[in-house]
Amino acid sequence: MSYFDGVPQIQFEGKHSKNPLAFKFYNPDQIVLGKTMREHMRFAVAYWHSFTANGSDPFGAGTAVRGWDQYTGMDLAKARVEACFELLHILNVDYFCFHDRDIAPEGSSLQETNRNLDTIVALIKDNMRASGKKLLWNTANMFTHPRFVHGAATTSNADVFAYAAAQVKKALEHGKELGAENYVFWGGREGYETLLNTDMGLELDNLARFMHMAVDYAKEIGFDAQFLIEPKPKEPSKHQYDFDAATSIAFLQKYDLLRHFKLNIEANHATLAGHTFEHELRVSRLNGALGSIDANQGDMLLGWDTDEFPTDLYSTTLAMYEILQNEGGIGRGGVNFDAKVRRSSFEAIDVVYAHIAGMDAFARGLQVATKLLEDRVLEQAIDSRYASFRSGIGADIVSGKATLSSLEAYALENKPIVNVSGRLELIKSTLNQYILNT
Amino acid sequence: MSYFDGVPQIQFEGKHSKNPLAFKFYNPDQIVLGKTMREHMRFAVAYWHSFTANGSDPFGAGTAVRGWDQYTGMDLAKARVEACFELLHILNVDYFCFHDRDIAPEGSSLQETNRNLDTIVALIKDNMRASGKKLLWNTANMFTHPRFVHGAATTSNADVFAYAAAQVKKALEHGKELGAENYVFWGGREGYETLLNTDMGLELDNLARFMHMAVDYAKEIGFDAQFLIEPKPKEPSKHQYDFDAATSIAFLQKYDLLRHFKLNIEANHATLAGHTFEHELRVSRLNGALGSIDANQGDMLLGWDTDEFPTDLYSTTLAMYEILQNEGGIGRGGVNFDAKVRRSSFEAIDVVYAHIAGMDAFARGLQVATKLLEDRVLEQAIDSRYASFRSGIGADIVSGKATLSSLEAYALENKPIVNVSGRLELIKSTLNQYILNT
Amino acid sequence: MSYFDGVPQIQFEGKHSKNPLAFKFYNPDQIVLGKTMREHMRFAVAYWHSFTANGSDPFGAGTAVRGWDQYTGMDLAKARVEACFELLHILNVDYFCFHDRDIAPEGSSLQETNRNLDTIVALIKDNMRASGKKLLWNTANMFTHPRFVHGAATTSNADVFAYAAAQVKKALEHGKELGAENYVFWGGREGYETLLNTDMGLELDNLARFMHMAVDYAKEIGFDAQFLIEPKPKEPSKHQYDFDAATSIAFLQKYDLLRHFKLNIEANHATLAGHTFEHELRVSRLNGALGSIDANQGDMLLGWDTDEFPTDLYSTTLAMYEILQNEGGIGRGGVNFDAKVRRSSFEAIDVVYAHIAGMDAFARGLQVATKLLEDRVLEQAIDSRYASFRSGIGADIVSGKATLSSLEAYALENKPIVNVSGRLELIKSTLNQYILNT
Amino acid sequence: MSYFDGVPQIQFEGKHSKNPLAFKFYNPDQIVLGKTMREHMRFAVAYWHSFTANGSDPFGAGTAVRGWDQYTGMDLAKARVEACFELLHILNVDYFCFHDRDIAPEGSSLQETNRNLDTIVALIKDNMRASGKKLLWNTANMFTHPRFVHGAATTSNADVFAYAAAQVKKALEHGKELGAENYVFWGGREGYETLLNTDMGLELDNLARFMHMAVDYAKEIGFDAQFLIEPKPKEPSKHQYDFDAATSIAFLQKYDLLRHFKLNIEANHATLAGHTFEHELRVSRLNGALGSIDANQGDMLLGWDTDEFPTDLYSTTLAMYEILQNEGGIGRGGVNFDAKVRRSSFEAIDVVYAHIAGMDAFARGLQVATKLLEDRVLEQAIDSRYASFRSGIGADIVSGKATLSSLEAYALENKPIVNVSGRLELIKSTLNQYILNT
Repeated sequence: MSYFDGVPQIQFEGKHSKNPLAFKFYNPDQIVLGKTMREHMRFAVAYWHSFTANGSDPFGAGTAVRGWDQYTGMDLAKARVEACFELLHILNVDYFCFHDRDIAPEGSSLQETNRNLDTIVALIKDNMRASGKKLLWNTANMFTHPRFVHGAATTSNADVFAYAAAQVKKALEHGKELGAENYVFWGGREGYETLLNTDMGLELDNLARFMHMAVDYAKEIGFDAQFLIEPKPKEPSKHQYDFDAATSIAFLQKYDLLRHFKLNIEANHATLAGHTFEHELRVSRLNGALGSIDANQGDMLLGWDTDEFPTDLYSTTLAMYEILQNEGGIGRGGVNFDAKVRRSSFEAIDVVYAHIAGMDAFARGLQVATKLLEDRVLEQAIDSRYASFRSGIGADIVSGKATLSSLEAYALENKPIVNVSGRLELIKSTLNQYILNT
Repeated sequence: MSYFDGVPQIQFEGKHSKNPLAFKFYNPDQIVLGKTMREHMRFAVAYWHSFTANGSDPFGAGTAVRGWDQYTGMDLAKARVEACFELLHILNVDYFCFHDRDIAPEGSSLQETNRNLDTIVALIKDNMRASGKKLLWNTANMFTHPRFVHGAATTSNADVFAYAAAQVKKALEHGKELGAENYVFWGGREGYETLLNTDMGLELDNLARFMHMAVDYAKEIGFDAQFLIEPKPKEPSKHQYDFDAATSIAFLQKYDLLRHFKLNIEANHATLAGHTFEHELRVSRLNGALGSIDANQGDMLLGWDTDEFPTDLYSTTLAMYEILQNEGGIGRGGVNFDAKVRRSSFEAIDVVYAHIAGMDAFARGLQVATKLLEDRVLEQAIDSRYASFRSGIGADIVSGKATLSSLEAYALENKPIVNVSGRLELIKSTLNQYILNT
Repeated sequence: MSYFDGVPQIQFEGKHSKNPLAFKFYNPDQIVLGKTMREHMRFAVAYWHSFTANGSDPFGAGTAVRGWDQYTGMDLAKARVEACFELLHILNVDYFCFHDRDIAPEGSSLQETNRNLDTIVALIKDNMRASGKKLLWNTANMFTHPRFVHGAATTSNADVFAYAAAQVKKALEHGKELGAENYVFWGGREGYETLLNTDMGLELDNLARFMHMAVDYAKEIGFDAQFLIEPKPKEPSKHQYDFDAATSIAFLQKYDLLRHFKLNIEANHATLAGHTFEHELRVSRLNGALGSIDANQGDMLLGWDTDEFPTDLYSTTLAMYEILQNEGGIGRGGVNFDAKVRRSSFEAIDVVYAHIAGMDAFARGLQVATKLLEDRVLEQAIDSRYASFRSGIGADIVSGKATLSSLEAYALENKPIVNVSGRLELIKSTLNQYILNT
Repeated sequence: MSYFDGVPQIQFEGKHSKNPLAFKFYNPDQIVLGKTMREHMRFAVAYWHSFTANGSDPFGAGTAVRGWDQYTGMDLAKARVEACFELLHILNVDYFCFHDRDIAPEGSSLQETNRNLDTIVALIKDNMRASGKKLLWNTANMFTHPRFVHGAATTSNADVFAYAAAQVKKALEHGKELGAENYVFWGGREGYETLLNTDMGLELDNLARFMHMAVDYAKEIGFDAQFLIEPKPKEPSKHQYDFDAATSIAFLQKYDLLRHFKLNIEANHATLAGHTFEHELRVSRLNGALGSIDANQGDMLLGWDTDEFPTDLYSTTLAMYEILQNEGGIGRGGVNFDAKVRRSSFEAIDVVYAHIAGMDAFARGLQVATKLLEDRVLEQAIDSRYASFRSGIGADIVSGKATLSSLEAYALENKPIVNVSGRLELIKSTLNQYILNT
């Protein structure tokens, strides 16, 4: 049976195609800068948005109409696996990502919950073997169940910490079983509702202890995935500890975890924290911590995580520009669509349209970023702007030879200081041309 | 002559006083928790807002009516010194803070500029000796002059870096001369307008080089002030590198500067970055980096730095609560009123009213925070919430004995997990009672 | 049985009481400005937050622990009625408010749904008669069910419009049956997800048609409740048509509905729209449209509707100040706690603590606002500021006698223009004194 | 002499041109939908940003390097006129806009100020005659001078109201003299700093009186310009009365001014108020009040008016889509670049680059919007979505025949309600294709 109206695999038809079920820009096996588009982006489908969620919002019930809604319990979980691999096939996408609770229902005991998971993991493994699809990353959902009301690794209740630890242990084992390339921590409840009743010092120490335990256990079982932290400033918590890339890096530095972790940067989380997506990618890249990305976009007039499918070409272009400049590109990471169709786009086919929209937007971004790099548009501007640091007093500064005294002596010569325009408007105009003409 | 309408020194008259020129809560020499109020807060007046600025805004000319406006050039600079010490006397405040360009006008060469500064610094020193007033901190203004259009330590122009270095060298010398207790870096132009033309890696490296040079030079001349970074997320820059406390700490860690620097936390900068004031103080405190505070408040419905005088008692209470819990309290730092009278409060007497408002708000905050601590209101709630980490499995977690495996074994016992309410509403109600009843 | 741990009716014990289950400021029958506190505020409990909701959020399941959770279906609906009247008794609150779907579950047909409603309405009526409690307002929930995915009165589907009309017809009948004093429209889905697929002109015309039908039907059945619109800018919709007070008034004016409608102003909706609560109250008041209020508070650092219980004394003071100055005060409206306990305050007793917190905050606000008015603190400042409009050229302006030409003639006399300070800092300091000393 | 480096008139060279001083999309005399591009947009240069402002910001002095900086007083004013007409020629732009204080300095008396204005207006008139350039609109600057600290038409000081009236009288006379097609009111200081000292009712009544006087005087002198209000929510005021389009319309309705006024909608003001640009245009259009636009764009991560030159093609496309659907298109209005080069783009040539960027972005927007309309992309989606309102029960609703009772009868038939997806993701993907392919 088909959960997506029998839609066949989406093909590339070029930018003028009128076929809503065709790629206009994403041509998976086209070579760009020495790699296929497929390899540059390593697209992934997010299990939670496309198979588990139902379109509910804080003021409304689910609207999604899905073929698997006829099932419940483990039958539902199995049907979702089928749907997932169908969608991966339709979209010609190689990767997927999941939380433990996305794929299997909680049982009446941790034992039963784990058995449920084992069953579905085995089914997923079979499907992976048959289809060649791969697991980009998995993670543990430690935010939905009421037990995590006060946090998981940063809970005020040691029993909850223990439960979360058990959950992550299982998730690491399943990650190994399925060959996951990364393991993600998103701390939805790791933060506080109010400082008035919070021992922030203990909570952060415990968070670090938790992560060290995970690192140790992964080593113990030989699971060599890259660990990732996914920063987000708030929601559902009033304030999350992994506020943004810099905050996460400060934490990783302080607790000697930076050599074990990179970051999974999400566009909408970036803007909620007051940064552009490309800023967060740049900060991560400069710290050797750009691990993977969660592709989506927010609504800049709304103050919550809207997780829209990414269609803004400015954003996808600048994201791909950062990734292309990262050593090894996206590396073991990927472009995971942590995005959901709008509640008003409730038909199954909308999930297909939405992924096409996002994949095309990133493919176009890749094309434009490539052309920008090939023409050295921004690189030339930057080389020229900072030229003064490559000789004379500038070189002394960079080499560490200069001191306040030597620089004062230089300044007291009173040579006229000549700045040059940053030319932002011209650069933005040029960027528009590259987006339109590439 | 008097620049403040001949107002005599403000006296404490108690909370029912109807005298607008009296303190209702600030009783400088009253002992609270073993120190005088004066020592707890170490209030400072900010030279720039109260003596240099004129009430202009991006759409309007200055409105301030000040006695010193009749002067220009160095005469104006001298008149402002007189006005400053008059205000310090009136307010019974011990400290002040300034940028180099606040106190003396730029000359036609760096040499002349420095001579201007030397003259005024000598005058200030005389006044300090005569009055017993002290310099909480000084800093260099590296953001107003057009030469800093692309930054100072993070400029794209090495000549500007050199100029900034000369300026800081002089400022450190003047800090030493005047016995400043701290030296502040606020990087108003240390950031970017757009990533498209920015070499962020070089800029951050240069910023660290700059700070190391300052540390070295201070050591060389025996100036033992505490160095402080003042985080701010944006404005005037589109994005500033010292975004918030955590970002600044990440920077200081990465560049091995954390042992030389603490933070100067400003309330309005905190909220612009998406945090509460108390959050930023807590983050600083937990990292041993709470150095000093810039007291003001923002307008939460406006997206820019309004630098209002602090009157919100919730905020001053929670700020003082953090300070009281900081090791050594405010230490060598102080409560500096980085706050300006509204453009529509343009009379000199408004400056007096405004400082009284702020000092009383902090004094009340100190009283309430003290009572909260004495009654262990929040401490009891916290002790009880986290009790499970002091024995059994919780103690194992904290001591480092626990592993994912040992915790899984514990969790598999399936003992019911019992959380208790965080009681936020009751705590907030209690806080109201403490504010009203103390 | 008791759903609230057998808590007895809350009593007034004065501001120093240490009893968490006592009022510290709310003294229901105390006379203030000629009316009891009870009459000034006409407090109401919101059925949806306190009896229907369960503490879920977009990332987490319900956490609330409630005695009625043991029931389902109509038994659950009946248990909630019992719980509601128990809470009204405990809190000594006279009013409550509900949406149709709060009180009774939807059936398999509209007929069954209506029968469910009839049953519960009859039960509520019995309880009202027995207890003397009253219905401040009722409304129809036209946002939770998936059928309203594209709106109710502004849907793109005429069948949904018809369904919504049927729902409102029934709600008006039940309002009449229970003697509701107001009827509220909150348009949670009346807005758009994107303009790209929206016929905004038709949708707004339809919204007006819908409201006229409601007005006509209420007249037909002799239901003389005051109609209210509750503005909100966004959430769940990306953009709601009733954005704020002014937008709602523009709509009511355009469609000749202003004589039939007033506004129900919510604090958190005000701030989401970029206004203070008191601004929205003032705008409503000046347009004769201040009908009722939804009391709560938002978190100014979060971009969604947090619906916290109101504890900010600045906000409650200024809200009561507007209400006291409204002709007839709160009139037929009331202070409805459209507020929910935090997800982490999940015990039933927290609902009691939270209402006490809110009621005390409003009672204190009433006391302070009363004292401010009695002492004419703000009135004197305003009288003096605008004195120039009471004689001479100012009086000519106000009377309509002046023209651009007469005013130019006056201005050309070049008399010096003398403004006086707005004294904001002094006023805020005084406000603090009033809050602390009243 | 040339103030813009002798740049010749910018020519259209097509989208692949590498010439930074060429139009890539704007082809002034190309016919689109029956009108030239020139007529569709009626571009205007804003005097204040391009000739009066100097690149200062709240933390920094002016950076702009301009040829006219060598002059002062009336010589400077005359040089700016020359520069203005040079730029209009270079850009091949037909219109310009100014505030009175942009073009001539204030004198020591109102008489002298007016003489200064008269002189420059005469010079401008000569230049207009010689060049064929036209005045899109003029206005009075009633926000920069300290006298307007408490407002102009909403001041607390009747003498200031009179002064403002004299200023507007003169501005209306100059508008007539120069054949201005519109007259604009932007109320930068018409709002409040705090409600605590504000008589909002009187202020709004006075604002309406002021506008009626202006309407009357324009009629008296036969100046038939379209009056426009330019909404903005805040800045410099804490809260402005003309918050957004809907608020302005409510005001105009209440005071019987709607037949005399339309709106001048600015992109950055829209987003500061929490709306998209296209929302504000749509609201204006549906109320017959879309008068003119101020073209720019904000930075969605910054909370103030950044007035960037518009380059976002999504925004220009949707703006032009609204304008094309407005009856008469932009009509007597135009697309005025209320935009400034960044402070770091301080060379005169940047002003040219920036306008090219903006004009090309709008030209591209016009092309895409035209193609969207020609292909009826959005129209078809909308026709189909709302089809149910064109027959049966839907037609009854629209015609006014339906009542709650008739609709309930219909709903009680319990026919299944079938909604269809809004297809937002597909629409956005299609929009990307139109932007890239047109």
